[in-house]
Amino acid sequence: MKNNTHHLAIKFGKTLRNLRLQANLSQEEFAHLCKIHRTYIGSIERGEKNITLEMANRVATVLGTSLSAMIALAEDIHDE
Amino acid sequence: MKNNTHHLAIKFGKTLRNLRLQANLSQEEFAHLCKIHRTYIGSIERGEKNITLEMANRVATVLGTSLSAMIALAEDIHDE
Repeated sequence: MKNNTHHLAIKFGKTLRNLRLQANLSQEEFAHLCKIHRTYIGSIERGEKNITLEMANRVATVLGTSLSAMIALAEDIHDE
Repeated sequence: MKNNTHHLAIKFGKTLRNLRLQANLSQEEFAHLCKIHRTYIGSIERGEKNITLEMANRVATVLGTSLSAMIALAEDIHDE
Protein backbone atom coordinates (compact mmCIF):
# COMPACT_ATOMS: atom_id res chain seq x y z
CA MET A 1 0.00 0.00 0.00
CA LYS A 2 1.43 3.31 -1.09
CA ASN A 3 1.81 5.75 1.77
CA ASN A 4 0.20 8.68 -0.01
CA THR A 5 -2.00 9.83 2.82
CA HIS A 6 0.02 12.78 3.96
CA HIS A 7 0.56 13.81 0.36
CA LEU A 8 -3.17 13.78 -0.25
CA ALA A 9 -3.83 16.18 2.64
CA ILE A 10 -1.17 18.54 1.26
CA LYS A 11 -2.56 18.28 -2.26
CA PHE A 12 -6.14 18.69 -1.11
CA GLY A 13 -5.08 21.82 0.78
CA LYS A 14 -3.37 23.26 -2.29
CA THR A 15 -6.43 22.50 -4.40
CA LEU A 16 -8.71 24.18 -1.88
CA ARG A 17 -6.47 27.26 -1.81
CA ASN A 18 -6.39 27.44 -5.63
CA LEU A 19 -10.16 27.14 -5.96
CA ARG A 20 -10.78 29.65 -3.17
CA LEU A 21 -8.48 32.19 -4.83
CA GLN A 22 -10.13 31.56 -8.20
CA ALA A 23 -13.45 32.31 -6.52
CA ASN A 24 -11.88 35.54 -5.27
CA LEU A 25 -12.64 34.74 -1.64
CA SER A 26 -10.50 35.55 1.38
CA GLN A 27 -9.98 32.82 3.97
CA GLU A 28 -12.31 34.78 6.22
CA GLU A 29 -15.08 35.08 3.63
CA PHE A 30 -14.75 31.44 2.69
CA ALA A 31 -14.76 30.31 6.33
CA HIS A 32 -17.95 32.29 6.89
CA LEU A 33 -19.63 30.57 3.92
CA CYS A 34 -18.51 27.17 5.23
CA LYS A 35 -19.57 28.07 8.79
CA ILE A 36 -16.16 27.14 10.14
CA HIS A 37 -13.33 29.16 11.67
CA ARG A 38 -10.85 31.00 9.47
CA THR A 39 -7.84 29.43 11.18
CA TYR A 40 -9.30 26.00 10.42
CA ILE A 41 -9.38 26.85 6.70
CA GLY A 42 -5.73 27.88 6.98
CA SER A 43 -4.74 24.59 8.53
CA ILE A 44 -6.65 22.61 5.89
CA GLU A 45 -4.93 24.59 3.14
CA ARG A 46 -1.53 23.79 4.66
CA GLY A 47 -2.44 20.09 4.79
CA GLU A 48 -2.16 20.02 8.57
CA LYS A 49 -5.68 18.78 9.23
CA ASN A 50 -6.84 15.26 8.74
CA ILE A 51 -10.26 16.45 7.65
CA THR A 52 -13.36 14.32 7.44
CA LEU A 53 -15.15 13.38 4.25
CA GLU A 54 -18.02 15.50 5.57
CA MET A 55 -15.90 18.63 5.90
CA ALA A 56 -14.20 18.03 2.55
CA ASN A 57 -17.64 17.71 0.95
CA ARG A 58 -18.79 20.90 2.64
CA VAL A 59 -15.92 22.98 1.25
CA ALA A 60 -16.41 21.43 -2.21
CA THR A 61 -20.12 22.29 -2.12
CA VAL A 62 -19.40 25.90 -1.08
CA LEU A 63 -16.91 26.13 -3.96
CA GLY A 64 -19.63 24.94 -6.35
CA THR A 65 -17.88 21.71 -7.26
CA SER A 66 -18.18 18.04 -6.40
CA LEU A 67 -15.87 16.36 -3.93
CA SER A 68 -14.82 13.80 -6.55
CA ALA A 69 -13.77 16.59 -8.95
CA MET A 70 -11.88 18.36 -6.20
CA ILE A 71 -10.03 15.20 -5.14
CA ALA A 72 -9.25 14.41 -8.80
CA LEU A 73 -7.58 17.84 -9.04
CA ALA A 74 -5.66 17.09 -5.84
CA GLU A 75 -4.52 13.69 -7.14
CA ASP A 76 -3.28 15.35 -10.34
CA ILE A 77 -0.86 17.64 -8.50
CA HIS A 78 2.66 16.35 -9.10
CA ASP A 79 4.87 15.52 -6.17
CA GLU A 80 7.61 18.02 -5.60
CA MET B 1 -25.53 24.85 0.64
CA LYS B 2 -27.10 21.49 -0.06
CA ASN B 3 -27.17 19.25 2.96
CA ASN B 4 -25.77 16.17 1.26
CA THR B 5 -23.23 15.24 3.89
CA HIS B 6 -25.07 12.42 5.52
CA HIS B 7 -26.05 11.08 2.11
CA LEU B 8 -22.42 11.04 1.05
CA ALA B 9 -21.39 8.89 4.04
CA ILE B 10 -24.19 6.44 3.22
CA LYS B 11 -23.26 6.39 -0.47
CA PHE B 12 -19.55 6.05 0.26
CA GLY B 13 -20.36 3.10 2.52
CA LYS B 14 -22.43 1.42 -0.18
CA THR B 15 -19.66 1.99 -2.72
CA LEU B 16 -17.09 0.51 -0.37
CA ARG B 17 -19.27 -2.53 0.23
CA ASN B 18 -19.84 -3.03 -3.52
CA LEU B 19 -16.13 -2.79 -4.35
CA ARG B 20 -15.16 -5.06 -1.45
CA LEU B 21 -17.63 -7.71 -2.58
CA GLN B 22 -16.43 -7.36 -6.19
CA ALA B 23 -12.91 -8.00 -4.88
CA ASN B 24 -14.31 -11.11 -3.17
CA LEU B 25 -13.10 -10.02 0.24
CA SER B 26 -14.86 -10.56 3.57
CA GLN B 27 -15.03 -7.63 5.96
CA GLU B 28 -12.44 -9.42 8.06
CA GLU B 29 -10.01 -9.94 5.18
CA PHE B 30 -10.49 -6.39 3.99
CA ALA B 31 -10.02 -4.96 7.50
CA HIS B 32 -6.77 -6.90 7.82
CA LEU B 33 -5.49 -5.45 4.52
CA CYS B 34 -6.43 -1.94 5.67
CA LYS B 35 -4.95 -2.56 9.12
CA ILE B 36 -8.17 -1.50 10.82
CA HIS B 37 -10.77 -3.36 12.87
CA ARG B 38 -13.50 -5.36 11.16
CA THR B 39 -16.27 -3.63 13.09
CA TYR B 40 -14.93 -0.29 11.88
CA ILE B 41 -15.33 -1.45 8.25
CA GLY B 42 -18.89 -2.45 9.07
CA SER B 43 -19.71 0.99 10.45
CA ILE B 44 -18.15 2.74 7.44
CA GLU B 45 -20.20 0.53 5.10
CA ARG B 46 -23.38 1.47 6.96
CA GLY B 47 -22.47 5.16 6.66
CA GLU B 48 -22.30 5.55 10.43
CA LYS B 49 -18.73 6.82 10.55
CA ASN B 50 -17.63 10.28 9.62
CA ILE B 51 -14.37 8.99 8.23
CA THR B 52 -11.33 11.08 7.44
CA LEU B 53 -9.96 11.74 3.99
CA GLU B 54 -6.94 9.72 5.11
CA MET B 55 -9.00 6.64 5.97
CA ALA B 56 -11.10 6.97 2.81
CA ASN B 57 -7.90 7.15 0.78
CA ARG B 58 -6.53 4.10 2.57
CA VAL B 59 -9.53 1.92 1.73
CA ALA B 60 -9.48 3.17 -1.89
CA THR B 61 -5.80 2.29 -2.20
CA VAL B 62 -6.36 -1.20 -0.77
CA LEU B 63 -9.19 -1.66 -3.30
CA GLY B 64 -6.79 -0.68 -6.09
CA THR B 65 -8.65 2.47 -7.05
CA SER B 66 -8.27 6.20 -6.53
CA LEU B 67 -10.26 8.08 -3.95
CA SER B 68 -11.65 10.43 -6.62
CA ALA B 69 -12.97 7.46 -8.63
CA MET B 70 -14.49 5.93 -5.52
CA ILE B 71 -16.21 9.17 -4.51
CA ALA B 72 -17.45 9.67 -8.09
CA LEU B 73 -19.12 6.24 -7.83
CA ALA B 74 -20.63 7.27 -4.50
CA GLU B 75 -21.93 10.55 -5.93
CA ASP B 76 -23.56 8.64 -8.79
CA ILE B 77 -25.73 6.55 -6.49
CA HIS B 78 -29.30 7.80 -6.74
CA ASP B 79 -31.13 8.89 -3.64
CA GLU B 80 -33.77 6.45 -2.57
